[in-house]
Amino acid sequence: MKLLRVGPVGTERPALLDDSGTLRDLSGLVPDIDGALLADEGELARIRTAAASGELPRLDGAGLRTGPPVARIGKIVCIGLNYHDHARETGATTPAEPILFMKAPDTVVGPDDSVLVPRDSVKTDWEVELAVVIGRTARYLETDAQALAAVAGYAVAHDVSERAFQIERGGQWDKGKNCETFNPLGPWLVTADEVPDPQSLGLRLWVNGERKQDGTTAEQIFPVAEVVRYVSRFMTLYPGDIINTGTPAGVAMGHPDPKPYLRAGDVVELEIDGLGRQRQVLKDA
Amino acid sequence: MKLLRVGPVGTERPALLDDSGTLRDLSGLVPDIDGALLADEGELARIRTAAASGELPRLDGAGLRTGPPVARIGKIVCIGLNYHDHARETGATTPAEPILFMKAPDTVVGPDDSVLVPRDSVKTDWEVELAVVIGRTARYLETDAQALAAVAGYAVAHDVSERAFQIERGGQWDKGKNCETFNPLGPWLVTADEVPDPQSLGLRLWVNGERKQDGTTAEQIFPVAEVVRYVSRFMTLYPGDIINTGTPAGVAMGHPDPKPYLRAGDVVELEIDGLGRQRQVLKDA
Repeated sequence: MKLLRVGPVGTERPALLDDSGTLRDLSGLVPDIDGALLADEGELARIRTAAASGELPRLDGAGLRTGPPVARIGKIVCIGLNYHDHARETGATTPAEPILFMKAPDTVVGPDDSVLVPRDSVKTDWEVELAVVIGRTARYLETDAQALAAVAGYAVAHDVSERAFQIERGGQWDKGKNCETFNPLGPWLVTADEVPDPQSLGLRLWVNGERKQDGTTAEQIFPVAEVVRYVSRFMTLYPGDIINTGTPAGVAMGHPDPKPYLRAGDVVELEIDGLGRQRQVLKDA
Repeated sequence: MKLLRVGPVGTERPALLDDSGTLRDLSGLVPDIDGALLADEGELARIRTAAASGELPRLDGAGLRTGPPVARIGKIVCIGLNYHDHARETGATTPAEPILFMKAPDTVVGPDDSVLVPRDSVKTDWEVELAVVIGRTARYLETDAQALAAVAGYAVAHDVSERAFQIERGGQWDKGKNCETFNPLGPWLVTADEVPDPQSLGLRLWVNGERKQDGTTAEQIFPVAEVVRYVSRFMTLYPGDIINTGTPAGVAMGHPDPKPYLRAGDVVELEIDGLGRQRQVLKDA
C-alpha cells in the first residue's frame, strides 16, 4: 500500500493511493498514519480490505498539499557515508561499522514543501536517501529476518545538510543536519510487502533540471537489514521512528570547486524507484 | 513553581510541589505538563493563582513514582565539553564555539527510575547536567535577553554516556548517548522566575555514596543565554524542547586507570542547587 497524509500543515488527513492511482480518503477509517497505526497489524489489514473493496471515498487531489507520510515521528537516526561511491567522493575511508547521527523530527516537512537555506549558510547541500520507517519495537535484534520484520515500509527522504555547520563548526555533524525544513519526507510510505528487495532501488536527484545523483541501494555499504540490526544494539527503535540510510555519490561537496551549493530559487527534485518523487524550491530562512 | 509529573510510566499526572513542600494535584487544572502548557502564560498564571490560594488538592506522595517533569519532549540538544574543568580532564582543548549533539526524547526516564547498562557496554559513564526547558519558540535569536525569555525553566538531567560507543565506534557521539534510559530528568521543572542566576548553581554527583562531581555552572564555557542564542541559529527550538548544557569535571573517563565505569548494582545520586535530587540503581539491559 501507498499511505500518505494530505492537507494543510498540521491538519493533514490520512489517505491511500490505490493501485489505479486514485487518491482515497482514510480519515473515516483511521485517525492518522503514525507509529501506533504502523504497529497495529489489525488496523493495517482493515485498510487493506477497505482498499481492495474499492469503496473508500475518493479524494480530489487537485491543489491538495502532500504532508510527510508519518505523523508523530519519535526519532530519526541517520547513517553517514553508507554508499561506496559517496564515501570515495568525500575523501573518507569506507567506515568499518555504520556511522550514526540524528535529525530531530521537527525538521520533517512534506515532499514538495519549501526548503529554507539557513541564515549565514554558504554550503547547503542535497542528499537523496532511502528512509526506513519502523513498525515494530527493535531492541538488540540478532538476525536480518528480525530486522526486516521490524520495518513497516519505505519512503523517499531528502537529508538536507549544511556542510560548514556539519564539519567546520566544532566536530559533531548534528549541527549541520537539524536546520528547519531539512528533512522533506514522502510523498508516500510504501509498505514493506511492496518493496521485496530494498537493495535494488535506483535513487536520483536533480538540481534545476540537471541530474546530480544517480545511484542504487545495491551500493550501500551496510544494507537495510544490517543497519536496523546494528542500530538496535545502541538504541531502541520504536514504531514511527525513521532511519535515513545514507546517500549515493553526487552531492555538491563532492564536486570540484566552485562547488554548486544550494541557494534561494534553486529547485531540487528527487525520486526513488517505486517510492515516488519530491520537488522543493529553496528559499531564504 | 516546582512542576512535576507523578504516577506509573505513561500515565503520570501533573502536580506541583508548593512552597511548604506539600505535593498538590494539578490534574483538575491542566491535562499535563508539556510544551503547550509551558508556552501558555495564561495557563501558568492560573496554576500560580491556584497554588497561592492553597486550595489545590493534596496528593499523598508515599510510594508514588516521580516521572520526567515534561511530557512530549520534542528534541534534546546537548552541549559537549561546556565546562573548563571537564574539557581539561578529557584532554580536549576548550571549544571555540559550542559542540552540539542530540539525544532522542525516548531516552528520558524519571529521576529515580533504573538506568540500564547496555549489552556489551564496558564504559557506561555518568554526567550531571543543568537541563534548560524551552517555553517559547527560539529562532535566530540575537540577544541574551531574548534567549533567557525563551526559557521556561530548569531541571536536573543525567546525561548517561557509553564512552566506547561514543568515541571508539565510528566518529559521531550520538551512538553512545542514545541508549535506553540514558536521560533521567527531574524531579522537578523549576520555573525560570525561581532561578534568578542559572550561572551560580552547584552540581554534585555521587556513585555508591562517594562524591565524584562537585561543580558549579559558573564554570560553564558558554553560559545558558549564549547556548540558547547559539543553538537558535542552527535549529529552531520549540516549547517542550530541552538543552542539556554539559557536565563539570569528575566523570569516570577523567579518572586514572582503571576507570570506575558503571556496572549493574551501582547507585548514582545527583543534585543541583534548588532543582532537586535524583537516585538511580544501575541494571543490566
